[in-house]
Amino acid sequence: MTTPYDLIVIGAGMAGVEAANKCAAAGWRTAIVDELPYGGTCALRGCDPKKILRRGAEIIDSARLMQGKGIDNSGLAINWADLMKHKRGFTDPVPQNMERGLTGNGVETLYGTATFTGTNTVDIDGAVHNSSHFMIATGARPKPLGFPGADQLIDSTDFLNLEELPARILFIGGGFISFEFAHIAARAGSRPIIVDRGERPLKGFDPDLVELLITRGAKVGIDVQRESVVTVIEPQPSG
Amino acid sequence: MTTPYDLIVIGAGMAGVEAANKCAAAGWRTAIVDELPYGGTCALRGCDPKKILRRGAEIIDSARLMQGKGIDNSGLAINWADLMKHKRGFTDPVPQNMERGLTGNGVETLYGTATFTGTNTVDIDGAVHNSSHFMIATGARPKPLGFPGADQLIDSTDFLNLEELPARILFIGGGFISFEFAHIAARAGSRPIIVDRGERPLKGFDPDLVELLITRGAKVGIDVQRESVVTVIEPQPSG
Repeated sequence: MTTPYDLIVIGAGMAGVEAANKCAAAGWRTAIVDELPYGGTCALRGCDPKKILRRGAEIIDSARLMQGKGIDNSGLAINWADLMKHKRGFTDPVPQNMERGLTGNGVETLYGTATFTGTNTVDIDGAVHNSSHFMIATGARPKPLGFPGADQLIDSTDFLNLEELPARILFIGGGFISFEFAHIAARAGSRPIIVDRGERPLKGFDPDLVELLITRGAKVGIDVQRESVVTVIEPQPSG
Repeated sequence: MTTPYDLIVIGAGMAGVEAANKCAAAGWRTAIVDELPYGGTCALRGCDPKKILRRGAEIIDSARLMQGKGIDNSGLAINWADLMKHKRGFTDPVPQNMERGLTGNGVETLYGTATFTGTNTVDIDGAVHNSSHFMIATGARPKPLGFPGADQLIDSTDFLNLEELPARILFIGGGFISFEFAHIAARAGSRPIIVDRGERPLKGFDPDLVELLITRGAKVGIDVQRESVVTVIEPQPSG
């Protein structure tokens, strides 16, 4: 067993890294651990890479809205492969930069899957570490879908890494991630469908605005299927 | 002489119209007069039409910045004639809408050039009107330039009405109107020059930001000539 820590942070995303840096700066012997590259969802698999893709979609959309009103936009298109490369230009350096920041602040950086073995101990890939405090900042996982064939699906992380955008794409669930991705995909030339089990998607958002968004989305080819429940996914030769 | 007014507002731009509407709503017998179509500089010959042209320039610029980073922009261009038509779609209805609003609020709308003939009287194209109060909201005029050939120049109103954008365009004076127009013109395919008499243009703005803007402008082909004074303008066969 190593020297005990004052704090081990489990999960090197925004919340965990911030806490680890602050506690180390305040004099605590601090470690952080993740089984994935440092950076977490927001910087690597969520908000930030999404913004790069969205910027591409915004430009296409702005130019289309002014077609015939001062902008000739023939030949304007998203180049998905270039866009992904551009995105990686932002995401690829994140883990190293974040580790450098943590190390510079005196945080010990650990790698692997943490499993609690006692009130004050975690096992990280075979090595046992002791700490008086732990912070669990492991984020969320996609909800498992119970229907047969759910293993055929890709998730938001996979979408943000698609090397090619399919000509048709179906999003299960009418939350904001589906809407954001569908709007990006539509501008990049795909035909998206959003399938939602409720009467109105984007629950929790202003209903009037949601209806406006759905109408606007329909104009760019986004098909929203309400009160629809996926029961099974079966691969077909036709795709 | 007509029934006396409580207030005559001279100048039907934003300031004058706002004052006339408020005073009429408060019960004053109010008139407003302009020798130009109602709306003033901001709505007809300044801020608002400029924003339409700027939006075109923004789209071109955004797409160019992402060329090779996810946007293929071959064929993307400003269509100046379409942009002007689009602009007129916003500016043309302004005078009528504004007059309708004023009339609806009980303001009397007069047309012509107002000249004071006494403490409480103005002559408007031959008709004398009496009022206990006057508000002068006539805006500004371009400063007369003393050098020979200054009558060859066009001003900002003319620029915003150009049916064709010249391939080369020179702005005299390094104020923000020159910079805004030069940045629009550059995105629309013209080669702009800004001539300024001072060491640094955009006096009154943060010097560091001004230098960044000049550097950025140079990249899109805007040539800023500092400490340069125009002494004469002579038409030449070469243009």
